[in-house]
Amino acid sequence: MTDISLPIVRMRPNKSPQRVRFGFPWIYNDELVLDRRAKNIPAGELVLVQDNDRRPVAICAFNANSKITARVLALGDTLTLDQDWFAQKMRYAAAYRDRMFDKPFYRLFHAESDGMPGVIIDRFGDAFVVQPNAAWADMRMDMIAAALRDVFDAAVIVKNATGRARGLEGLNEDSALLHGAIDAPIPTPMNNATYMADLLGGQKTGLFYDQRPNHAFAANLAKDCDVLDVFSHVGGFSLAALAAGAKSALAVDASTPALELATAGANASGHGDRFSTERGDAFDVMDGLAKDGRQFDVVVCDPPAFAPAKPALDKGLRAYERVARMGAALVKPGGFLVLCSCSHAADLAKFRTASLRGMGKSGRSGQIIHTGGAGADHPVHPHLAESSYLKSLFLRLN
Amino acid sequence: MTDISLPIVRMRPNKSPQRVRFGFPWIYNDELVLDRRAKNIPAGELVLVQDNDRRPVAICAFNANSKITARVLALGDTLTLDQDWFAQKMRYAAAYRDRMFDKPFYRLFHAESDGMPGVIIDRFGDAFVVQPNAAWADMRMDMIAAALRDVFDAAVIVKNATGRARGLEGLNEDSALLHGAIDAPIPTPMNNATYMADLLGGQKTGLFYDQRPNHAFAANLAKDCDVLDVFSHVGGFSLAALAAGAKSALAVDASTPALELATAGANASGHGDRFSTERGDAFDVMDGLAKDGRQFDVVVCDPPAFAPAKPALDKGLRAYERVARMGAALVKPGGFLVLCSCSHAADLAKFRTASLRGMGKSGRSGQIIHTGGAGADHPVHPHLAESSYLKSLFLRLN
Repeated sequence: MTDISLPIVRMRPNKSPQRVRFGFPWIYNDELVLDRRAKNIPAGELVLVQDNDRRPVAICAFNANSKITARVLALGDTLTLDQDWFAQKMRYAAAYRDRMFDKPFYRLFHAESDGMPGVIIDRFGDAFVVQPNAAWADMRMDMIAAALRDVFDAAVIVKNATGRARGLEGLNEDSALLHGAIDAPIPTPMNNATYMADLLGGQKTGLFYDQRPNHAFAANLAKDCDVLDVFSHVGGFSLAALAAGAKSALAVDASTPALELATAGANASGHGDRFSTERGDAFDVMDGLAKDGRQFDVVVCDPPAFAPAKPALDKGLRAYERVARMGAALVKPGGFLVLCSCSHAADLAKFRTASLRGMGKSGRSGQIIHTGGAGADHPVHPHLAESSYLKSLFLRLN
Repeated sequence: MTDISLPIVRMRPNKSPQRVRFGFPWIYNDELVLDRRAKNIPAGELVLVQDNDRRPVAICAFNANSKITARVLALGDTLTLDQDWFAQKMRYAAAYRDRMFDKPFYRLFHAESDGMPGVIIDRFGDAFVVQPNAAWADMRMDMIAAALRDVFDAAVIVKNATGRARGLEGLNEDSALLHGAIDAPIPTPMNNATYMADLLGGQKTGLFYDQRPNHAFAANLAKDCDVLDVFSHVGGFSLAALAAGAKSALAVDASTPALELATAGANASGHGDRFSTERGDAFDVMDGLAKDGRQFDVVVCDPPAFAPAKPALDKGLRAYERVARMGAALVKPGGFLVLCSCSHAADLAKFRTASLRGMGKSGRSGQIIHTGGAGADHPVHPHLAESSYLKSLFLRLN
């Protein structure tokens, strides 16, 4: 049955609906007839997109202000978008995560890949951080929150409105605690360590779950090792390495709050005595360590996105090369260098080339022992396979 | 000090030695002056390659019959290629593997990536299978065997001469037991299961270590599940899944010996009661299961290389699409499909496209939850990064 109450938006005559019918989740502004009526549809409303022959294509979340004008919520012409719809999606997503992870600490929704365009939800036990980075979800935060309470008996629900994509959707940056109370960072078990997730003040949603398998791989290398963790944030690589038996870990970051959370995590994990921090510009600190002749068994460099978008690509790649060059110089012979990039614009091949050039410029050679991506709670949409933004390169240096 | 006893081969005037000096491990026939003298250098001999200004580039293993005419063993002009050289390389490679794996069952040398051009060595405790797939190593098998006994106190050493690359090097297919005695498959612990490795009669070197992390990822999905393992070989995915608590595993393969080894492994792992096999053509068996209306929680398809080299690419991709289509039809809603390719010619993007097209043709949709590669004992040479031949695609199907 067609939901006849929905506004109809039609695809342009020369645009094929095939790609969407085969699963592509977006319809761009130049594929749709955006007359004055369509442009007046409020951002976030549902619409029925029809093809040029007035056959239904999909029910979409609409936003005339966004280049991604229609986000597919359901193929065809039937959808009841209510609390139950969200609850069902949550149960489906959680069933998989609960299979993969033995404790309920994970990314529950990874946007389009989980059938939730623009919506990120990270779970920390019974606390949830929601990033509604598209208008349709932002205006339905109450419904999402109600579904979280229904399905998971959520005790805490935070709305995090810091996502970069919100600007493109015309959304504000008003984060809020929507439900429950929270007065301290949440201890988050991962890779046998305890991390401190600051759900209100932290970057993104307080913790980076995406690096979990790369933390684990590095930790596996780190037994009895001295580890240098540059751009450490809250100690992702350090704490996993210490839990796996690293001799020491030194975390370097420019953020005092991040290092305080890292230290709190190391203490909560029972490894505070082997953990130290150094606040400062990562390049300056690496330079200083090199001048002191320091070397480590394992060096990790997990910088912020140097090339988040195309215009920053060349500059970003030079920064990755510099990180690799400076990092390589700090690795003992036979030791390991871990280089990460979360830049969308720098694909694996480009990032790898920049990293290997940097390694070469430091006078070192080596092997690539592993290439890691984001964790299994960050699935990839089949039609957006290039959206696997996270790359971790593991090198053993001669 | 230059080893003046070596024959000298010069690079052509218009060919730059830069790439080799920066670490590229091969010099092709069109880069070298191959006069009659050079062509008469016996295959496998060491040569000193000089640039056009007679400066040393590298000491290389030479083979005028091969397109890869010179394989770099050492940059510059100094190398003592003796048992100690092999022993040192072995100790370096083993130090890393022993860090990664808690038992000495792994690939010890992965050819160029471990500084051993063309040489594969797989380790099964104190038994070693050597594939000397380049002339220089084939003629030094005694030295390699002596080094294995020296470093690891090797009890068994097998020479496996079935490698496809040997033909290009002009080498014969004479496999041999070089040291020790072997009268039964070797129990090989991996992912909490026990595999049976037939070092004399098996494919490649008796077992596929490269799939270890993908076996583990699939096993993690398989608790309480019914698993279908198509192209099972000796039960790689099945046995790991059973060890992780799968309800049942059905292994399908065309090879009776492979299925016998799989069954022996299941029994040795203590899971024989939950394991069954079906011998036959994989496509026929999948077709039969579909006609019977059978579906599984986890379906794995790990076929032989359908596109080992470029001429077979199109046909190979169609075969991967067919595997995906037939495999997807056998997955329960919300279940998992694991698709693997060990084809050099089909890169990840091509393989993924073919697989997703097959999934679509079966009428299914889903998410990519993980993309896996070869295990950490299969490092990648920085200059041959495209040599990461193994791809495993993990999908969750709606």
